[in-house]
Amino acid sequence: MLYLIGLGLSYTSDITVRGLEAIKKCDRVYLEHYTSILMAASLEELEAFYGKPVSLADREMVESGCEEILRGADKQNVAFLVVGDPFGATTHTDLVLRAKKQKMPVEVIHNASVMNAVGSCGLQLYNFGQTVSMVFFTDSWRPDSWYDKIWENRKIGLHTLVLLDIKVKEQSIENMARGRLIYEPPRYMSIAQCCEQLLEIEESRGTKAYTPDTPAVAISRLGSADQTFKSGTIEELSQYDSGEPLHSLVILGRQCHELEIVYLLEFADDKTKFQSSVTQDQEYFKPAPWVPPTEDAE
Amino acid sequence: MLYLIGLGLSYTSDITVRGLEAIKKCDRVYLEHYTSILMAASLEELEAFYGKPVSLADREMVESGCEEILRGADKQNVAFLVVGDPFGATTHTDLVLRAKKQKMPVEVIHNASVMNAVGSCGLQLYNFGQTVSMVFFTDSWRPDSWYDKIWENRKIGLHTLVLLDIKVKEQSIENMARGRLIYEPPRYMSIAQCCEQLLEIEESRGTKAYTPDTPAVAISRLGSADQTFKSGTIEELSQYDSGEPLHSLVILGRQCHELEIVYLLEFADDKTKFQSSVTQDQEYFKPAPWVPPTEDAE
Repeated sequence: MLYLIGLGLSYTSDITVRGLEAIKKCDRVYLEHYTSILMAASLEELEAFYGKPVSLADREMVESGCEEILRGADKQNVAFLVVGDPFGATTHTDLVLRAKKQKMPVEVIHNASVMNAVGSCGLQLYNFGQTVSMVFFTDSWRPDSWYDKIWENRKIGLHTLVLLDIKVKEQSIENMARGRLIYEPPRYMSIAQCCEQLLEIEESRGTKAYTPDTPAVAISRLGSADQTFKSGTIEELSQYDSGEPLHSLVILGRQCHELEIVYLLEFADDKTKFQSSVTQDQEYFKPAPWVPPTEDAE
Repeated sequence: MLYLIGLGLSYTSDITVRGLEAIKKCDRVYLEHYTSILMAASLEELEAFYGKPVSLADREMVESGCEEILRGADKQNVAFLVVGDPFGATTHTDLVLRAKKQKMPVEVIHNASVMNAVGSCGLQLYNFGQTVSMVFFTDSWRPDSWYDKIWENRKIGLHTLVLLDIKVKEQSIENMARGRLIYEPPRYMSIAQCCEQLLEIEESRGTKAYTPDTPAVAISRLGSADQTFKSGTIEELSQYDSGEPLHSLVILGRQCHELEIVYLLEFADDKTKFQSSVTQDQEYFKPAPWVPPTEDAE
């Protein structure tokens, strides 16, 4: 059996009881280790908690070499652990398809991921649109296809969850060229950098998918003991010190109920200003009032 | 401390280790019991698993009488258990706000909910739009505001998760009028009924937010041992026997990668027909090609 097991967001003990029972039965345990990190647990702590060794699976192993992971999973039990949920921000459907092709039974044990736990900022999950990813800009690479997606969401009043880039086990171009297996220290995008990149692209596009005054919520270390929310305009949040990773951002859409705003105001430094940025933003994106056809038009 | 604890989707053991540890510390334990059900566990099984009594909290207790739940939560530990995640399809922000107003500490322990576990059908969560709810139509009440939301999602290529109505502890109008505390047996909407209601409203609206040939995926008993997916057109699924509850439906949007379609085809009775319904639907909703402005227009 191949078990795909979600680890949840932060602690070793965020795994489900069923997930832990499955790991106990497994001959080999892999941890997907390139799209996210478990915030409050090291590899050693996971191994101690499970009572068995855990192998780190990097992108290369998962995407091109999953034979190693699947080896013997028709007769043995193998666990593939994923921070969050196995079908969360990064889906592992490819691994499932390969296992099924080899007639290996697969069991998925779900857990919370940022895609649903983001609801704890107080905004209804019902009203979220498509999710976008913000990557680190470089001098030569500043991808902005997310801009249109935010705009599409906001035109119909929906919130946008922005997932912030993380770089784990990346090589410098020089080390890659010289074939040196030396990796850069991990990097995690901050809320401020994400908001700066948002503002840069809005300035160059200029079509007001959002403005510096658009309200947003910064979500830091979601699900951990020092989880923090901060409500503010994108401009304000571009100055915000969000602390340790991981971070996500939600850009508000028009569809906000009063109770949701009350909840968000708790996280704002300047409540009056935040309330007025919400009101202005809602006004800007309000659909034109419906006008009945005149008799002439018939 | 007030603990809001997600139970996940199906088994008693779908609770997280951290959630279970919290319950063990609690003086009183409530289970929210009107928006969803835990599929593979009875109240007695939960009580045996936790080693303590669990009180059922109906809508009235949670929405108007939450003093009972919050009583003493400044000095004692109280657990409020929610199937799925506490901030999933139904959010319990109101309870959190009331607790905070009374200076009671609150801790949320997240879990999987339909809002993220739906990714196990193979469609990327990134490309879902707003979620809609389908209620049981009656002779006099056939609400269809969800129709516009599906249309909005599909115009920008997004999938729509449709949550199907459940009726737990409902009174008949007669019993309510006579003040009899007699409750109807619980009812859970089937995939077929949901699709019939979809087709009825499309026929009366006639604006082709979707058609009988639009591809969709039926998701039954998500996260349980007999979880089932069925890919088909809305028309086909209106004839589908989806079996025991709970069910959800995803109406596909245009934004599908080839790998996602390969995954969905595994769940289709007629793979060729499903593939062609996807192709047709994608063609219908394809944005018009971008045309550069002519020199005349300048």
